Amino acid sequence: MAHYAAAQRAGDFVYLSGIVAVDPIRRVALSSYEELSESARQSLRGLGYDTGQMSVDIFEAPMVAQSWFVLDRIRQLAQEQGGEMADAIKLVQYFRDLRHYPAYNRVRALFYPTDPPVSTVVEVSRFLPGDDVLVEVEATLYLPR
Amino acid sequence: MAHYAAAQRAGDFVYLSGIVAVDPIRRVALSSYEELSESARQSLRGLGYDTGQMSVDIFEAPMVAQSWFVLDRIRQLAQEQGGEMADAIKLVQYFRDLRHYPAYNRVRALFYPTDPPVSTVVEVSRFLPGDDVLVEVEATLYLPR
Amino acid sequence: MAHYAAAQRAGDFVYLSGIVAVDPIRRVALSSYEELSESARQSLRGLGYDTGQMSVDIFEAPMVAQSWFVLDRIRQLAQEQGGEMADAIKLVQYFRDLRHYPAYNRVRALFYPTDPPVSTVVEVSRFLPGDDVLVEVEATLYLPR
Amino acid sequence: MAHYAAAQRAGDFVYLSGIVAVDPIRRVALSSYEELSESARQSLRGLGYDTGQMSVDIFEAPMVAQSWFVLDRIRQLAQEQGGEMADAIKLVQYFRDLRHYPAYNRVRALFYPTDPPVSTVVEVSRFLPGDDVLVEVEATLYLPR
Amino acid sequence: MAHYAAAQRAGDFVYLSGIVAVDPIRRVALSSYEELSESARQSLRGLGYDTGQMSVDIFEAPMVAQSWFVLDRIRQLAQEQGGEMADAIKLVQYFRDLRHYPAYNRVRALFYPTDPPVSTVVEVSRFLPGDDVLVEVEATLYLPR
Amino acid sequence: MAHYAAAQRAGDFVYLSGIVAVDPIRRVALSSYEELSESARQSLRGLGYDTGQMSVDIFEAPMVAQSWFVLDRIRQLAQEQGGEMADAIKLVQYFRDLRHYPAYNRVRALFYPTDPPVSTVVEVSRFLPGDDVLVEVEATLYLPR
Amino acid sequence: MAHYAAAQRAGDFVYLSGIVAVDPIRRVALSSYEELSESARQSLRGLGYDTGQMSVDIFEAPMVAQSWFVLDRIRQLAQEQGGEMADAIKLVQYFRDLRHYPAYNRVRALFYPTDPPVSTVVEVSRFLPGDDVLVEVEATLYLPR
Amino acid sequence: MAHYAAAQRAGDFVYLSGIVAVDPIRRVALSSYEELSESARQSLRGLGYDTGQMSVDIFEAPMVAQSWFVLDRIRQLAQEQGGEMADAIKLVQYFRDLRHYPAYNRVRALFYPTDPPVSTVVEVSRFLPGDDVLVEVEATLYLPR
Amino acid sequence: MAHYAAAQRAGDFVYLSGIVAVDPIRRVALSSYEELSESARQSLRGLGYDTGQMSVDIFEAPMVAQSWFVLDRIRQLAQEQGGEMADAIKLVQYFRDLRHYPAYNRVRALFYPTDPPVSTVVEVSRFLPGDDVLVEVEATLYLPR
Amino acid sequence: MAHYAAAQRAGDFVYLSGIVAVDPIRRVALSSYEELSESARQSLRGLGYDTGQMSVDIFEAPMVAQSWFVLDRIRQLAQEQGGEMADAIKLVQYFRDLRHYPAYNRVRALFYPTDPPVSTVVEVSRFLPGDDVLVEVEATLYLPR
Amino acid sequence: MAHYAAAQRAGDFVYLSGIVAVDPIRRVALSSYEELSESARQSLRGLGYDTGQMSVDIFEAPMVAQSWFVLDRIRQLAQEQGGEMADAIKLVQYFRDLRHYPAYNRVRALFYPTDPPVSTVVEVSRFLPGDDVLVEVEATLYLPR
Amino acid sequence: MAHYAAAQRAGDFVYLSGIVAVDPIRRVALSSYEELSESARQSLRGLGYDTGQMSVDIFEAPMVAQSWFVLDRIRQLAQEQGGEMADAIKLVQYFRDLRHYPAYNRVRALFYPTDPPVSTVVEVSRFLPGDDVLVEVEATLYLPR
Repeated sequence: MAHYAAAQRAGDFVYLSGIVAVDPIRRVALSSYEELSESARQSLRGLGYDTGQMSVDIFEAPMVAQSWFVLDRIRQLAQEQGGEMADAIKLVQYFRDLRHYPAYNRVRALFYPTDPPVSTVVEVSRFLPGDDVLVEVEATLYLPR
Repeated sequence: MAHYAAAQRAGDFVYLSGIVAVDPIRRVALSSYEELSESARQSLRGLGYDTGQMSVDIFEAPMVAQSWFVLDRIRQLAQEQGGEMADAIKLVQYFRDLRHYPAYNRVRALFYPTDPPVSTVVEVSRFLPGDDVLVEVEATLYLPR
Repeated sequence: MAHYAAAQRAGDFVYLSGIVAVDPIRRVALSSYEELSESARQSLRGLGYDTGQMSVDIFEAPMVAQSWFVLDRIRQLAQEQGGEMADAIKLVQYFRDLRHYPAYNRVRALFYPTDPPVSTVVEVSRFLPGDDVLVEVEATLYLPR
Repeated sequence: MAHYAAAQRAGDFVYLSGIVAVDPIRRVALSSYEELSESARQSLRGLGYDTGQMSVDIFEAPMVAQSWFVLDRIRQLAQEQGGEMADAIKLVQYFRDLRHYPAYNRVRALFYPTDPPVSTVVEVSRFLPGDDVLVEVEATLYLPR
Repeated sequence: MAHYAAAQRAGDFVYLSGIVAVDPIRRVALSSYEELSESARQSLRGLGYDTGQMSVDIFEAPMVAQSWFVLDRIRQLAQEQGGEMADAIKLVQYFRDLRHYPAYNRVRALFYPTDPPVSTVVEVSRFLPGDDVLVEVEATLYLPR
Repeated sequence: MAHYAAAQRAGDFVYLSGIVAVDPIRRVALSSYEELSESARQSLRGLGYDTGQMSVDIFEAPMVAQSWFVLDRIRQLAQEQGGEMADAIKLVQYFRDLRHYPAYNRVRALFYPTDPPVSTVVEVSRFLPGDDVLVEVEATLYLPR
Repeated sequence: MAHYAAAQRAGDFVYLSGIVAVDPIRRVALSSYEELSESARQSLRGLGYDTGQMSVDIFEAPMVAQSWFVLDRIRQLAQEQGGEMADAIKLVQYFRDLRHYPAYNRVRALFYPTDPPVSTVVEVSRFLPGDDVLVEVEATLYLPR
Repeated sequence: MAHYAAAQRAGDFVYLSGIVAVDPIRRVALSSYEELSESARQSLRGLGYDTGQMSVDIFEAPMVAQSWFVLDRIRQLAQEQGGEMADAIKLVQYFRDLRHYPAYNRVRALFYPTDPPVSTVVEVSRFLPGDDVLVEVEATLYLPR
Repeated sequence: MAHYAAAQRAGDFVYLSGIVAVDPIRRVALSSYEELSESARQSLRGLGYDTGQMSVDIFEAPMVAQSWFVLDRIRQLAQEQGGEMADAIKLVQYFRDLRHYPAYNRVRALFYPTDPPVSTVVEVSRFLPGDDVLVEVEATLYLPR
Repeated sequence: MAHYAAAQRAGDFVYLSGIVAVDPIRRVALSSYEELSESARQSLRGLGYDTGQMSVDIFEAPMVAQSWFVLDRIRQLAQEQGGEMADAIKLVQYFRDLRHYPAYNRVRALFYPTDPPVSTVVEVSRFLPGDDVLVEVEATLYLPR
Repeated sequence: MAHYAAAQRAGDFVYLSGIVAVDPIRRVALSSYEELSESARQSLRGLGYDTGQMSVDIFEAPMVAQSWFVLDRIRQLAQEQGGEMADAIKLVQYFRDLRHYPAYNRVRALFYPTDPPVSTVVEVSRFLPGDDVLVEVEATLYLPR
Repeated sequence: MAHYAAAQRAGDFVYLSGIVAVDPIRRVALSSYEELSESARQSLRGLGYDTGQMSVDIFEAPMVAQSWFVLDRIRQLAQEQGGEMADAIKLVQYFRDLRHYPAYNRVRALFYPTDPPVSTVVEVSRFLPGDDVLVEVEATLYLPR
């Protein structure tokens, strides 16, 4: 997207840049379940999403798919730093429309099955690179050496 | 409201989730002085609020009462962690309407009589769980062991 | 602007309050290149800004000048703490209109010629003290003793 | 609400008036799960609704509860006419916001486990008696004597 | 207005096209009591309408006059089919603004003094041929041979 | 799109679900003449549409193509039931913008060269699955056995 | 509501403060007929209001009830000053929406059966203490000693 | 327009109802110079209005003509009470758009060539009987007996 | 501003024109405390205003300063007529935004320490000469000779 | 409309003022086919316009009739200058809504059967004398002597 | 403002760039009569403008002063080219709000006392360099050598 | 796009139709640098555009690419007429948003390195064929034979 660091260690902490669900090749935000892996879709179907009914999925897919993508990306970055999802102890979550919160909340529970993180949630106006991005998450990892 | 941790220690720091002034029973945001304790009201009257005049209080009460509630909750959480208000060294304060800032600022001075914290203030669109929430505050505590 | 601390050390970290480009004397946000130092303007001209053409500068000057002011202020605060710009490892950058991002991004590259910081970017509604403030930046410095 | 017939037989058909989910005593539309019977809530929990998390339920409860109420009322009227839900062969479904469709669609599947009805769906502006009504359904029953 | 059938018999049913109160000569919707017959006005005066006070009638006349016109037209079509108003057993009533419902409801009671019809009421955006049409009614007649 | 029946016989009547012009593969509404068969385009050219001039077709194609698609689909369903277009005796036609009516009206005349159906026309807010759907038509067939 | 005088004599005149229909206990504006006395409701029923039909009353009750309350309060104040309604010779009447005028006008005629007062009517934006107040009336009494 | 008194004497004062420029026959507000007397038009031409150029008069005529009508009506009422324009010592002037003030102000100077009255000017939302009324004036006359 | 009389005696009454807080030299409405006298500022500080904190004063100063200016001007005019503030027995107070009422109400109490006046408060759209005027007050003095 | 020259020769060029379709007597823009000559209507019927169906013509007539009027006026002015339509080699065409372009384009082809002119098309906000004017065309004629 | 030619001769024609009334030093559009020369103001007073009354001039001055500035600038450029105002035979006049046309039209008559030019008038959205520019005029001069 | 002439010679002048940057095959406006030739991109990179950073380019690419396309097309047409860019002596430039002017202005300087043309710039509402067109330029060439 632009010049920035995806992650940066400072003492026992690792800060992550705010993450959005943008396909780096096509330069647009995720909007359908087809853009996720089959195993991700399996998990989402367990929540009642990814129904295969067009008029249902068209409203839910963008938020659900982006939620998965963003949280999965945090997990990957935690793993690259030698940690795991549970080490992402603090999340600041920005939404374009808080009516998307219920879907996000269900997806997040898949990533934090036991201890949930410290969480801040606000609705803001817009994200980079454009209007189809629905959520941005900034994570702080605690990974003492 | 949802599954999240109210506070989480990481080394010498304690992170708090973003706090809003919602009555957990009635599920609505605070909107009147009657929802505060008598001692809180005493303090606010010292600032010229809680006048007892309907046409004055109706405009000021929601913001003033929420400001007290949110900051008081941070103080409680700091105390639960073995600290005090002064240990909340950094606040990120989100408002739905920055015209509410003067009232919030007066209330905050009651909680930080001497050294004020590091402070970020922005106006955003909305908070959970609904439109009557006027302010959300995210605090970082420094509590070296 | 109000009672708050510009910076606060906590262990190996220094937190800065959110910074906006407001002239403390005139109480308005920066809006023209004339309000910057000649050396700052020299740098900006190298990016193609500060053209001297009224119909060009009138649209670009407010954002470009504020970007410089805010980042320069972070550099000053880092220096006051015994550090430098590169120690500002994490920035949260709030914009009133993300169409201002390209200009800000060019200016920021002047301050981080080598390693860019961890970065979060969101568009919000408004800043203190008023509508002419276009960007607010909150920086976290890592300055181990 | 006003003077009209809830149902009217004409030959082998029974026409129902448009139905909305309004509590006849309190004169407001349903907005929470508490207003439904325990068995209804049981069914909805099977769909993943009625979570008990305030920030989730506050967005979903009005539509989910109204969907249940309206379809359940059609079932009652069909039974009063000596039929059952499957005899409601045609539904015209008006929504105030089609983003509510996924929730309604999940609830409707509980009422039509096998053969779905003929269905028309449009988004309109408003219903009687007020803005909190989110869906209105007009059913045609085929009940040959 | 356009090519369509005003009424069509199908078995024991007669379907009517949606009716609006448009003067076929002047091509505008009814807006004043003067456009109704004296006997119609007599009836409306019994309801407290057609007051002769300009500032009262100017707000009420368009809706009241159109309500009369539309329902009277249904009665005429029912009579042409050998029936009467009571045979119009089902009405779908579209409004541009549901605040007009009370006036319509009073007028309709004049046409259905005893058994009211099955009734669906929704607020939509606009009707043919233009913005001054306030209500459209689609009737279904049951006229077994 | 979702679980529903496309058509349902009840005595001498066949009810059709509301029909929209959505390509089942690409999941978007029709927007150009290229999506129609050559014979359909031939007919539309006879009305003066499908001109080949970009600035003309871009405004007219979505409505004209959708009108054809929807009415053609009704004809197919009538034929599947052993009838023909003329048996679709009653249409309820919902538009997102009534300025589209003239084009629709011209296309419909191609399908009803002699006796037009009973017709209701209203402008509503939106259709499934999204904003690019411009018209939805609900047909009632009279097909006595 | 606030510190002000309800009435003040000046020579042969008595000025009244602007009056709104707010329940002093619950601090909200009147919105239903239940908040009026039975005799008031009797009078309003004579005008065709207070019908008992929810979808009618919900639109008309707020304005009709507030009109009665405000004018009745003027009558009370006139009586406290030793006068009667007819002595309120001049009214300035502010509305939030002039479409409420017909209802107000019918109610006022109950209070001025013979000689109407001098009258000014304008639509303004809002009243104290909030958006649910629909009308404010300022009266001047002429009560020569 | 409605039942009210045009003027009412109270001691040495005569109160006038708020006056708008509505043609009592056609029930619409004045909008052109043709609706004024020739002598009125002569006066207005002296101010540079009533130019005969369509694109000029179409913007200015409604306000200028209404200003004349309203002030002229106050003069007539003053004369009916045995006084003259100068006895209208206090005016409250409501506008729908204060950009109309310059034109009104010029016209008023024709009626008060020497001592101007006490004057209050505010912009409000609307007047009776409709949106084409641009100004309403309430006058108080001092006419000691 | 324009040709009008600031005050006019009529019998025992003195009418004042509507007053706004406009600096006659600079032609703009008051917006800061610096435009008031030191003694005025002293009084306002006693109410908790004029804090010296930019982000607080910027929101409150315009309304507070205008309130003082307008009421002080009424006091001056009362004194010029040989009276005092208490003789201003009736105020009509127009606001552009009623959320400004609490501040105005506190300032007014400084001018009426004992007996408050008769008071009418409405929110309107705009004042002369422009959008920065937030309040206009029209006073009636009772000054029997 | 105002003082201006309809046409002006400068060397081999004749410039025309921008033309709108306003009836000079009634001072309103053309809105129906009845305002055109029979031969004009004949031509338009050849394009499929002027159908005689109210709900079709009401949407199309204003634009189609104005297009004819404006282009016909250019032809007349060209003829008065000794030329013909083909000499109007350059047109600047302003629309209030570009969705009107297809109709205009069809009409223009009647005036330029062979060589079309150089053409600029933009959508602007409004024309003189008012909102019902939908198109303005400025023509340049090349008429070498 | 930017790099462009103010005027350019091409054969017997001189084309002028679009002109706006911007003070080159202060970089803002003209807004008051004080910014014009005394002789210009004299002329405008002859039209009834520049009244010295604040509430009148504040609405009229920006448009009147800009009209004078722009037309005067065209006259200067014509003179620099060896011509005069009458040689500006064609004007395209863009306005931000056509309600400003009457004032502009009166001023233009001062510059074209005898033969008016060919004229095109449209309302557009905005001009360089900003929102306070109300009119832009593009002139074509015919100056045969 | 439609039937019109791209260019037309009249004496020593060549008029061009208004040009927009629309890809004739895909029928959409240019929106990315990839749609330009490599040499064009080289030139734009010299201005600091075409950065390769997604969040920068996404905001700037549409305007920059369209500016290049349109001006390059004028150059081609000038060359086809036997001239060059410098012969395009007069440009009328319409924008949908004047904030795009700085980018356009930089690109134009590449085409007019020495003598800039006569220039008119206005912001209008929309262009053919749709909302993604950001600029339209109409050029006049002076090419004496």
